[in-house]
Amino acid sequence: MSTPGAFAPSGIITLTTDFGLADPFVGVMKGRILSRFAVARIVDLTHEIPAHQPQVAGFWLARCFEDFPAGTVHVAVVDPGVGTDRAIVCLLARGHALLAPDNGLLEPCRARDPRSEIVELAPAALAALHIHRVSSTFHGRDIFAPVAAELAAGRCPPAALGPRRERLAAVDAAVHSPAPHSAAVLIGSVVTIDRFGNLITDLDAERLKGIAAPRVCIAGRGLPLRRTYGEAHAGELLALVNAFGVLEIAEAHGSAAATLGVKPGTQVTVEEGEEHLLGGANRL
Amino acid sequence: MSTPGAFAPSGIITLTTDFGLADPFVGVMKGRILSRFAVARIVDLTHEIPAHQPQVAGFWLARCFEDFPAGTVHVAVVDPGVGTDRAIVCLLARGHALLAPDNGLLEPCRARDPRSEIVELAPAALAALHIHRVSSTFHGRDIFAPVAAELAAGRCPPAALGPRRERLAAVDAAVHSPAPHSAAVLIGSVVTIDRFGNLITDLDAERLKGIAAPRVCIAGRGLPLRRTYGEAHAGELLALVNAFGVLEIAEAHGSAAATLGVKPGTQVTVEEGEEHLLGGANRL
Amino acid sequence: MSTPGAFAPSGIITLTTDFGLADPFVGVMKGRILSRFAVARIVDLTHEIPAHQPQVAGFWLARCFEDFPAGTVHVAVVDPGVGTDRAIVCLLARGHALLAPDNGLLEPCRARDPRSEIVELAPAALAALHIHRVSSTFHGRDIFAPVAAELAAGRCPPAALGPRRERLAAVDAAVHSPAPHSAAVLIGSVVTIDRFGNLITDLDAERLKGIAAPRVCIAGRGLPLRRTYGEAHAGELLALVNAFGVLEIAEAHGSAAATLGVKPGTQVTVEEGEEHLLGGANRL
Repeated sequence: MSTPGAFAPSGIITLTTDFGLADPFVGVMKGRILSRFAVARIVDLTHEIPAHQPQVAGFWLARCFEDFPAGTVHVAVVDPGVGTDRAIVCLLARGHALLAPDNGLLEPCRARDPRSEIVELAPAALAALHIHRVSSTFHGRDIFAPVAAELAAGRCPPAALGPRRERLAAVDAAVHSPAPHSAAVLIGSVVTIDRFGNLITDLDAERLKGIAAPRVCIAGRGLPLRRTYGEAHAGELLALVNAFGVLEIAEAHGSAAATLGVKPGTQVTVEEGEEHLLGGANRL
Repeated sequence: MSTPGAFAPSGIITLTTDFGLADPFVGVMKGRILSRFAVARIVDLTHEIPAHQPQVAGFWLARCFEDFPAGTVHVAVVDPGVGTDRAIVCLLARGHALLAPDNGLLEPCRARDPRSEIVELAPAALAALHIHRVSSTFHGRDIFAPVAAELAAGRCPPAALGPRRERLAAVDAAVHSPAPHSAAVLIGSVVTIDRFGNLITDLDAERLKGIAAPRVCIAGRGLPLRRTYGEAHAGELLALVNAFGVLEIAEAHGSAAATLGVKPGTQVTVEEGEEHLLGGANRL
Repeated sequence: MSTPGAFAPSGIITLTTDFGLADPFVGVMKGRILSRFAVARIVDLTHEIPAHQPQVAGFWLARCFEDFPAGTVHVAVVDPGVGTDRAIVCLLARGHALLAPDNGLLEPCRARDPRSEIVELAPAALAALHIHRVSSTFHGRDIFAPVAAELAAGRCPPAALGPRRERLAAVDAAVHSPAPHSAAVLIGSVVTIDRFGNLITDLDAERLKGIAAPRVCIAGRGLPLRRTYGEAHAGELLALVNAFGVLEIAEAHGSAAATLGVKPGTQVTVEEGEEHLLGGANRL
């Protein structure tokens, strides 16, 4: 199923970048895709990944790619190393093909499938696919778009892209250090803040299992864990397991980010409490 | 024509939300739609509705949905009550199906078709459509997307979603009170401000009919009613009936919002004037 | 090939506007297109052109339209003259059809094809296409969308839109004056600033050919010309020929716009230097 040869393209391509939508960069990627595969169905996942932060792209992609049909090609271009000799890799995981620079972006996706496989894009494959004029600064247009089109069209099996690799490039993982004398049993951080001011953390719900009456601490505040926004009154801060399976800190009908004054990177800890507030949270 | 049974799907789905585009929330809704209906054609109406303001979504949806082919499914998710027991409703109006939380959002659409019908989404329909794992916080992905896909694919007739309803949930309408001694014959407010700084009001053009020489008052200024921006010189403030059939206050080649310093919610009144400036405005 | 009669539609339509995405204006254009041509494939190039700056739309469109398949219809609506008697024109260039107000927007595209042809949209064509109710303020929806749909559907050959024209409306070109005693051999300006803070200029790479060791000057700084971001260390300012073939000023892993404090319109000059730094830049 997850062997490169077994990838069965759905004709769908998703795009995730840090390009924003103000410039035509995403549009020209779509033009290049359609020039090779006229009936591609292209979906934007997001183009507002913070500039040069592949780990944020990987966080979201890992939690979203399986919402698309198996056989989808996912292109993620957050690529501070463009123009250097960093590799481009194709990850085959759970029936999907994910194409990205080899800068750690794909690690959270790889971790979701113990049988995943990795192929490194080889110069010979570019030549075989007639990908010639490659700029030094815009591989999204010049490499990722045409390769994704060929994969999605079923004209290029993933195994033809290049040699198999055993692992992705290693990157420094964030190190979380608790404060001295902390009662924290879990330590994480805010990955991103959504449009509503909700703080989305890197703490997966399954890590909360077995913690009696978890109490979520951020910016000097301790918050109960609730099941949904509807369980809090307007203006109340709460923690919950969100729809992506991670711990989130929210303010009912308000902005937790504004109230707490926190930014991405802020530390979040979970302590074992005395009350039983967990409810159905880890059923989400 | 507008009976639930007569809805003939076009295969097109539009999306209107307050999710923004910075996060992948809209993208995953599309993934879930395509997972059920691979050839859906999905169009973004807008995802920048102000957070938790269903009335702004309803204002625009009512003025836009008929620009799409009959048989289109319009999904609108501006849903401050997600996770509570608020209902989800499907409105059948003028050959379109509109799916939204029952929070007043669909009222302006319903008002456009005296023969419209309302169906309330029932838990049994979710089970019948194999919609099982539903989070408490993201019904856009977990309910609206799959239901829209089934409607657009023609596999689920609207009548199968649940029981007929006579009316939508009542919501408080804005109350407009004129200042004492005002000569106002019409009172409304600014609904939204577009990218050019134009102030878009909730005053429909037809309400201007029969008012001799209308004079539009906002922020202490009285403005003539013109036919188009081109009739004003650069920097001049003017009022006109815009392409959506409502009164708009604009500055030719400038930003009325910046010049007047007003925000959404600001009161707008129309007085009967002495001059004859109306021209062809209500022909738009 | 580039005669109006020889345009062979691909079924793809691109959209470039200054409408932004906060309002549903782009969405309703798509609705009107799909109402006439249900299988149109519509791609957003960008909707964040600075308000009322057709020259920025033209700059990008000229550098992007050939990334789409021949036979694509490109609609560009940056139209400060909407509601006046400005014409609408269709440019046939290199197998593509480009539709825009006749306000200079299409001039950079026309310059790319010496055999291009121009047709002016005539009122008779609107009538023949059953385009009747036209507002004074939103020609994107009322004229451009349906005309593009008919062109893309192959039901209206470009020649049927109206009379041939010899040239586009003349517009004032920016005048670049060097400072007295300047050693500048090339003078241009910053057209736009991308999301990364890179300064994109109107100086085409081919104009750099033959300049020995070019030195790029902006905001009192002189910068070397490099091949790619990867050749600079983090925080270093550099100039390079970007993927669109124009001179760009960047800061490696930073924002040149923030560091230099410059805005669109800022003058950029190129001097002949003494060192040989050019490298492979003009191969991009």
